[in-house]
Amino acid sequence: MQRNRFLPDMLSTLFDRRKADATDDDPRDMDQLCYALLSEEGEVSGQKLAAIILDRYRNYDDTAKLAFFNFLNQELEIDASALADLATEYATNHSTHTFGHMFNACIAPRRELLKQLNQPTGATADLVSMRVDLLRLMKGAPDLARTDLDFTLLLRSWFNRGFLVLKQIDWDAPASLLDKIVAYEAVHEIDDLDDLRRRLSPADRRCFAFFHPAMPDEPLIFVEVALTDTIPGSIDALLSEDRTPLSAGNARAAVFYSISNCQDGLKGISFGNLLIKQVAKELALELPQLSDFVTLSPIPRLNTWLVDQTNDPDIGHVAAAVLAGVAPSDDVRAMAARYLVDAKRGDGTPVDPVARFHLGNGAEIHAVHAGADSSDNGRYQSGGAMVNYLYNLSLVERNHAAFVLDSTVATSKTIKALTRAPFKTKPEALAS
Amino acid sequence: MQRNRFLPDMLSTLFDRRKADATDDDPRDMDQLCYALLSEEGEVSGQKLAAIILDRYRNYDDTAKLAFFNFLNQELEIDASALADLATEYATNHSTHTFGHMFNACIAPRRELLKQLNQPTGATADLVSMRVDLLRLMKGAPDLARTDLDFTLLLRSWFNRGFLVLKQIDWDAPASLLDKIVAYEAVHEIDDLDDLRRRLSPADRRCFAFFHPAMPDEPLIFVEVALTDTIPGSIDALLSEDRTPLSAGNARAAVFYSISNCQDGLKGISFGNLLIKQVAKELALELPQLSDFVTLSPIPRLNTWLVDQTNDPDIGHVAAAVLAGVAPSDDVRAMAARYLVDAKRGDGTPVDPVARFHLGNGAEIHAVHAGADSSDNGRYQSGGAMVNYLYNLSLVERNHAAFVLDSTVATSKTIKALTRAPFKTKPEALAS
Amino acid sequence: MQRNRFLPDMLSTLFDRRKADATDDDPRDMDQLCYALLSEEGEVSGQKLAAIILDRYRNYDDTAKLAFFNFLNQELEIDASALADLATEYATNHSTHTFGHMFNACIAPRRELLKQLNQPTGATADLVSMRVDLLRLMKGAPDLARTDLDFTLLLRSWFNRGFLVLKQIDWDAPASLLDKIVAYEAVHEIDDLDDLRRRLSPADRRCFAFFHPAMPDEPLIFVEVALTDTIPGSIDALLSEDRTPLSAGNARAAVFYSISNCQDGLKGISFGNLLIKQVAKELALELPQLSDFVTLSPIPRLNTWLVDQTNDPDIGHVAAAVLAGVAPSDDVRAMAARYLVDAKRGDGTPVDPVARFHLGNGAEIHAVHAGADSSDNGRYQSGGAMVNYLYNLSLVERNHAAFVLDSTVATSKTIKALTRAPFKTKPEALAS
Amino acid sequence: MQRNRFLPDMLSTLFDRRKADATDDDPRDMDQLCYALLSEEGEVSGQKLAAIILDRYRNYDDTAKLAFFNFLNQELEIDASALADLATEYATNHSTHTFGHMFNACIAPRRELLKQLNQPTGATADLVSMRVDLLRLMKGAPDLARTDLDFTLLLRSWFNRGFLVLKQIDWDAPASLLDKIVAYEAVHEIDDLDDLRRRLSPADRRCFAFFHPAMPDEPLIFVEVALTDTIPGSIDALLSEDRTPLSAGNARAAVFYSISNCQDGLKGISFGNLLIKQVAKELALELPQLSDFVTLSPIPRLNTWLVDQTNDPDIGHVAAAVLAGVAPSDDVRAMAARYLVDAKRGDGTPVDPVARFHLGNGAEIHAVHAGADSSDNGRYQSGGAMVNYLYNLSLVERNHAAFVLDSTVATSKTIKALTRAPFKTKPEALAS
Repeated sequence: MQRNRFLPDMLSTLFDRRKADATDDDPRDMDQLCYALLSEEGEVSGQKLAAIILDRYRNYDDTAKLAFFNFLNQELEIDASALADLATEYATNHSTHTFGHMFNACIAPRRELLKQLNQPTGATADLVSMRVDLLRLMKGAPDLARTDLDFTLLLRSWFNRGFLVLKQIDWDAPASLLDKIVAYEAVHEIDDLDDLRRRLSPADRRCFAFFHPAMPDEPLIFVEVALTDTIPGSIDALLSEDRTPLSAGNARAAVFYSISNCQDGLKGISFGNLLIKQVAKELALELPQLSDFVTLSPIPRLNTWLVDQTNDPDIGHVAAAVLAGVAPSDDVRAMAARYLVDAKRGDGTPVDPVARFHLGNGAEIHAVHAGADSSDNGRYQSGGAMVNYLYNLSLVERNHAAFVLDSTVATSKTIKALTRAPFKTKPEALAS
Repeated sequence: MQRNRFLPDMLSTLFDRRKADATDDDPRDMDQLCYALLSEEGEVSGQKLAAIILDRYRNYDDTAKLAFFNFLNQELEIDASALADLATEYATNHSTHTFGHMFNACIAPRRELLKQLNQPTGATADLVSMRVDLLRLMKGAPDLARTDLDFTLLLRSWFNRGFLVLKQIDWDAPASLLDKIVAYEAVHEIDDLDDLRRRLSPADRRCFAFFHPAMPDEPLIFVEVALTDTIPGSIDALLSEDRTPLSAGNARAAVFYSISNCQDGLKGISFGNLLIKQVAKELALELPQLSDFVTLSPIPRLNTWLVDQTNDPDIGHVAAAVLAGVAPSDDVRAMAARYLVDAKRGDGTPVDPVARFHLGNGAEIHAVHAGADSSDNGRYQSGGAMVNYLYNLSLVERNHAAFVLDSTVATSKTIKALTRAPFKTKPEALAS
Repeated sequence: MQRNRFLPDMLSTLFDRRKADATDDDPRDMDQLCYALLSEEGEVSGQKLAAIILDRYRNYDDTAKLAFFNFLNQELEIDASALADLATEYATNHSTHTFGHMFNACIAPRRELLKQLNQPTGATADLVSMRVDLLRLMKGAPDLARTDLDFTLLLRSWFNRGFLVLKQIDWDAPASLLDKIVAYEAVHEIDDLDDLRRRLSPADRRCFAFFHPAMPDEPLIFVEVALTDTIPGSIDALLSEDRTPLSAGNARAAVFYSISNCQDGLKGISFGNLLIKQVAKELALELPQLSDFVTLSPIPRLNTWLVDQTNDPDIGHVAAAVLAGVAPSDDVRAMAARYLVDAKRGDGTPVDPVARFHLGNGAEIHAVHAGADSSDNGRYQSGGAMVNYLYNLSLVERNHAAFVLDSTVATSKTIKALTRAPFKTKPEALAS
Repeated sequence: MQRNRFLPDMLSTLFDRRKADATDDDPRDMDQLCYALLSEEGEVSGQKLAAIILDRYRNYDDTAKLAFFNFLNQELEIDASALADLATEYATNHSTHTFGHMFNACIAPRRELLKQLNQPTGATADLVSMRVDLLRLMKGAPDLARTDLDFTLLLRSWFNRGFLVLKQIDWDAPASLLDKIVAYEAVHEIDDLDDLRRRLSPADRRCFAFFHPAMPDEPLIFVEVALTDTIPGSIDALLSEDRTPLSAGNARAAVFYSISNCQDGLKGISFGNLLIKQVAKELALELPQLSDFVTLSPIPRLNTWLVDQTNDPDIGHVAAAVLAGVAPSDDVRAMAARYLVDAKRGDGTPVDPVARFHLGNGAEIHAVHAGADSSDNGRYQSGGAMVNYLYNLSLVERNHAAFVLDSTVATSKTIKALTRAPFKTKPEALAS
């Protein structure tokens, strides 16, 4: 039985706002329209002007888009000299009045323009798409990074965590939404809806996504979860179609085996950390018997690192054996553990980007597995090795703090032992 | 029959997010918690930290609140000297890299803190309430205006027009919501729910409000509308309980007779203009036979102005007669018209604040009426006179532009004639 | 967080079916229209014909309604002779073919007509209203009971328990629905919405109702519940406005203090038993610490019975003292207990109708209280005495079976003791 | 913008009723449980008893199911002798009291049992499934037709038109629901969800279904519609993937090209007529420019009839040529028209079942097409010929009445002409 269902539904109206019927017979060019939107005219006719501008933009080719971005970047720019004067003045007189002027001088007109554009139905999605274009065109025009700072600031404000909506995606979700899950899956490819059914329908599978009220049919990020009786060591077994689904009530572990960001236009605005933790909380509430929340993650740069080690007098022969696929599984695991724990970048953090993400979230490196991913990609990047990162909800803060402070890598005893274990591969093994 | 109902309902989840179970056993003081929220710890435990801070704040008295705002204002401030240096540097070198530093220097840490606070369920409403406190305490501490600039900027971004939801409020709305309509009605007081029923239930009444997805049970602003066969000249008749309700299909005019802002914490973020126009569009779609969209508005400062005119050699006797309630109705209307059209502030705009609002929206002064409002307030402020502002949707842009450009006041022919009409009150009328 | 929200919403469509735009320009009279609806024409144009018939009926006065019911009763009647022949034939030949004819002969054409009428939006509510008329007019035309049998059969089928919807009514419910709760409350009158707020808003109050999908804005029956720390002995204290609301988590008892049937047209179709048990289950799930589910019920015929006892040589003086309001509270309770346990009708069941209802549901008589209801009605019918019936969910079946089998009245030890307790009132007490 | 959204959502509760946690430790056998459900015990514990019975039934094999149905058929039967006596008595005494007894004697206890079974969540669907079994087992036990009469009566009452919900099915529908559309499509097979996407997604496609509130995830019947600019003559072209979708606003005709009943357990309870008309109304409202509502239907028994005609001295050679695929298209059409218009059954109605359905609904035979369906089934049954039935909403009643009265077949002028047209195939054509 439900309660309090009356209020939430009020919001469905958000998506009923009619598309502004913007028949564009305005004789002004794009720049003029933008200035108009920023002027008093924008106060009265902002919705219509915004609709026309967004509509014109959608029909632009890259040349026109670049010109538009250059207009934002150069013409709707902060006046740095004026700002310098005002900041200097305020540093001297500490006048609230001066502060107000300085405050306004800090805001480029383009940021105000972007806000004003966000009026017609669907405008938020349009602006996210616009940033996709900007990020692409920025590669050839690095100065546009200035404009991207305003995009990022605004999108970060609008996609503030307080506005995100967590939603379970199951086989009762709209087919149009499931199409997007198929399209956005980034880690373990999904062929079509029938393939997706195998990831959503069984009793031991879950999928969760974040949404934003202004883009209700667009997932921002989603995670696929498998419920298992033990912490799994192979993605092949986990995704096997022959598997007998586990009853959810018998599950002991929740395995986050795939996380996919959906919106390129929100690059740099991170939702993954929050998603994993919120999903872990939801699952813990639904299935109180769950004891472990882990990932089953790829080790994307293991092989690259192994190649680099082949000349190492101490472990070169092991690296070579692993690369050649002739090392015993224990040595594969030992090398993977060493890579994850010891291979560091200049800033002292792990070379592996997935490790950085999960360790940064406060997870620990829990276990590594050889021969866990037989896909082409899996074999290519890590010879099929995979890793579990464990989210112990009572330790994530401490782990995170230690990782941030001095790049301390949290590991299980198993992993610690593995990094110290003597190798079974003999140096002469490859000589012959 | 409905379509496309599947997607919107996904959002109801927004309001199901559980209250962060923030048992506050944190030994740190408020300042330390704020710094923690801004630090790496905020990345991992932001939701919990934000919940604790908001919870502590809710239990603060004014002294503690003021201390908190002073902390924001002074400790989490822009470093103006550093900003001045960076702006000067960028004005010289035009380096994108320098720009990035300057960009960040423009953002006070308190703004980032406010964003980080917006994580737990209900946080948006908490922050709006926080600004109510700030505005109150600012009166005795005007420097806090610096902090208010950040509140305003952020709330303006979050309550961007693109995120607002228009919703019709009728007698099928939740009673808990209707309680708020009763409480927030600012123009023509509503006694209780039974009184409100008379404003919502009849076939010739409508009420519309804006909502925000993150505050679904809090209206932001609402407007009450009466459907009539002619443009009305009396609020008494309009609200009369004895009236026979008009069938909506027979209505010719939609009368916006009351607009109430609900959220003091959103002061300075204007929704009224947008609300009136969007409601006019909705009504035009539902009832295509509607020809006039007008207000029936008070004239709040008419009497104050009339008192000032009593010494005027030309019209002083008329002003006095109107004030004394002995002037013929035509002279009351003539004086009201003159007041609305001619009484200006230093900046050239009308003295009357309601006139400024509607003229600024592009409406015209359409008609004035004597004896239209017999309430105590109505008689006190304007001797019962009222005014219709007319929203001609095809003229609002032009009117608005002219008003902004040179404070041109749009008026009907009737009003124009009234301002020129000879008075009937004789100078000697009051002499005796 | 919610799941599986997609499917249920499909049903909202049920209520979007447009009112059949039945402009009634049909020249036929009511009887002819009914025959048409039963004919082949009904197959194609049933919805329109039904709308016209229901529309005409709504505008009928009692004379016309009576004529309509007489038409149903006499013209659309079972052909009993034919039925007798077919039943005799089937009893002899046991032919399935004959059975089919007999089966059809069992169904009066009026029942088919009522089914056919249930096509336009709102028709179910119309038919329920029609039965209200029928029950009233039946008083002067008892033969109409034949038609009422068909109404009852059909409504019992449509309002089958499997189609009922339990819904909590709180202060977030639509005001239009709350108006109906105010109007339908049968036990402890509610003045207006503000009075109702006191029964719905506090943390220690609940209200639940059954609905039917075809009448979504009409409650069928509702129960009001108070959460308390002990089993209460006074409705006055229970409903007191001065009371400090209990936190729901601290409640030990759920008190069903008022049950109201809403639809006179569903008389004889009982929902009360089911409602109490389903609400008890819901509350037990929400508040697992609840230990007692009880009523606080009136004793409607106590005083009538007491008057009858005044001549009894053994207890007449106690009955008189109780009626006169001079008996000690223990004697009031003792007499109430005797009345409830011992006063029987010819069929061996209790005289008291409320007792019959709850005992028939499997409840036990748990405790009686003197001076528990100071309302006019409470004092008039029982001198203010009230009773708790206790629903022990593990005993209701056994209690019910014993009650049905041999009218065994389940009682607590307290009640048992009370029926045997010696009276304190002395025989001479009233003599002087 | 929406209104009145508050009330409908109350109903979502219907589907939240928890599965009765019926742990079946009841020692009684099925017959005893059924008698218990019909007894006083059913009043108190009906929901639990019903859940146990339905649960046991679900696990029955056909032998056990047959025994259960025989129990219903024989033990829970009408007492025909008693009924005969009561009917005779009532025919004589016309006593309302006797009528009541007769009325009850008309109702077999099994019907009451079925009603009582409809209490747990999902019971309605269980009972519909039960009838699927019954219809199958009835083939070997024709006496069970008596029990089926009660099933039919009850299901017809519950699935009364007034309770049906029309819902548009589009690509935003839940995938789990779309799976069912794929499975139930009876006319033009759908391979999988990706195939279904082509029938739902394009702007010129629609799909509508009826639902019942107690089975919200089970469509009862659905119709697929194509929007076209002209009345189409070929299902191949209509379903072609290469087709450029028409904008809905440019459509002139709505083509009902496939109607599928979904619930075998509702056999004999017809929804098709109502569905077509209600969908036609919906489409006419959404797309007022639509002028024609037609089907594109198969002619299932054309070839069978043609074979019968091959010996006819007048048209045998044409029939043979058509069957052989060597007749000119005009002769194919002429023979199809003759078949549809002239081939009658003993009762005077058309031999063709699809023709009977649409003519019975009041449609006319509008046009026939050769080579319209190249599927195996299409070629097998009619050599690929298809027919349009036209629903002229202003004529359906008249057509229906004439069809019912004397089996008059409504036809267009084209069809009339075709039935009289001289054949082009020469008698000697096949001789050689």
